[in-house]
Amino acid sequence: MMRIDVATLFPEMCQQVLDESILGRAARKGLIETHCHQIRDYTLNRQKQVDDYPYGGGCGMIMYAQPIYDCCQDVIRQVEQQGRPRPHIVFMTAAGKPYTEQEAKRLAEYDSLLLVCGHYEGIDERVIEEIADEEICIGDYVLTGGELAALVVADSVLRLQPGVLSQPEGYQNESHWDGLLEYPQYTRPEEWNGRKVPEILLSGNHAKVDQWREEKSIERTKERRPDLYEKLKNKDKKCT
Amino acid sequence: MMRIDVATLFPEMCQQVLDESILGRAARKGLIETHCHQIRDYTLNRQKQVDDYPYGGGCGMIMYAQPIYDCCQDVIRQVEQQGRPRPHIVFMTAAGKPYTEQEAKRLAEYDSLLLVCGHYEGIDERVIEEIADEEICIGDYVLTGGELAALVVADSVLRLQPGVLSQPEGYQNESHWDGLLEYPQYTRPEEWNGRKVPEILLSGNHAKVDQWREEKSIERTKERRPDLYEKLKNKDKKCT
Repeated sequence: MMRIDVATLFPEMCQQVLDESILGRAARKGLIETHCHQIRDYTLNRQKQVDDYPYGGGCGMIMYAQPIYDCCQDVIRQVEQQGRPRPHIVFMTAAGKPYTEQEAKRLAEYDSLLLVCGHYEGIDERVIEEIADEEICIGDYVLTGGELAALVVADSVLRLQPGVLSQPEGYQNESHWDGLLEYPQYTRPEEWNGRKVPEILLSGNHAKVDQWREEKSIERTKERRPDLYEKLKNKDKKCT
Repeated sequence: MMRIDVATLFPEMCQQVLDESILGRAARKGLIETHCHQIRDYTLNRQKQVDDYPYGGGCGMIMYAQPIYDCCQDVIRQVEQQGRPRPHIVFMTAAGKPYTEQEAKRLAEYDSLLLVCGHYEGIDERVIEEIADEEICIGDYVLTGGELAALVVADSVLRLQPGVLSQPEGYQNESHWDGLLEYPQYTRPEEWNGRKVPEILLSGNHAKVDQWREEKSIERTKERRPDLYEKLKNKDKKCT
């Protein structure tokens, strides 16, 4: 059963997100385990200060190495006390490896992950060199902190754990799984606001429905994500 | 002053995230405004059911068009009552436009945004056709819902609003802003765990510090993100 720990300055906020909805239900069923840790509790100074000015000048504050390092060491101890191997440690940074569904599947194989969230300006590089197994970036945009990035990784990894999604096939038809965007979906009623569900979906002809969906997926990928479509075409070429 | 509304099945969770840290402080200062709305409150059936099986078969549940549509209409009314123009409506979907810092800057120009979060399996396509101005995808990975995606968009857009970051230059040196990854950062102490801060950063020679940082940024981008580095090289070619 997979365990994910998050080291952050906002543990309550992170825990609330992880305790909601599908992941919360899975945790209550004992299918996954999540824990959030306050980095500030590991400061050694009286003011509980966690950051300071960068050497060499520049604006913004940089998080100290020491509290992050000590927090991670404590989490490692807690995880190992459960009889688990040392957690795989991932720092959420803008300079990290781009995150994709393939990376989610790779991370989902670890016994446990420790996700470390930096403040918005950055983390002292030395703690990353010292303890990080890897750095991950969820996208080419800037966030005020690493918390949302860690929650994105936790969500995408934990949903792949056995039993978390009610139907195991659930994730097989989804966008980004096979490199195609998903076809449009419709539910009741048959007509809403003057708009009708495509007739083919009401036909009961499964072969035709599947064909229509595949066509729509390809059409949509070609139109909206030429980058994904090119990759797919190249992959297909290799196969033939 | 920018306003962001979020339509979701988990409004409390979303609001808690938006009320934390930098964005929470900015909202309390009246620099930004955020509101989260419960889609379920707009259902017309007695069971308050929000989703149903997909037409054409397949696993997973699809969210009804009607409650989402009525929720959006109500938000539009509330926003317009403030004397604002109709909000720009963005659906968070896996088939949406890839999100980047450039998109964040574009969205940051709107008077207000309404971010709509789908359930994990999908939304009836007709409500997207009817009311969405655009669809956005924060990355090529699958999430259990659109909530984290909406929070990522809200965070990256709101941090660009005047006064939200304490130093307006704050975002100018960051990764993804100019297409280069950020250089490594260091703060006190000069030596930690046997690791020293690079001497150049202690030299007080600003020109040399800037040169070192630029070199490190380029080196790192080349090594970790050849895709960004190629784009930059092509851009530079056009300039010369």
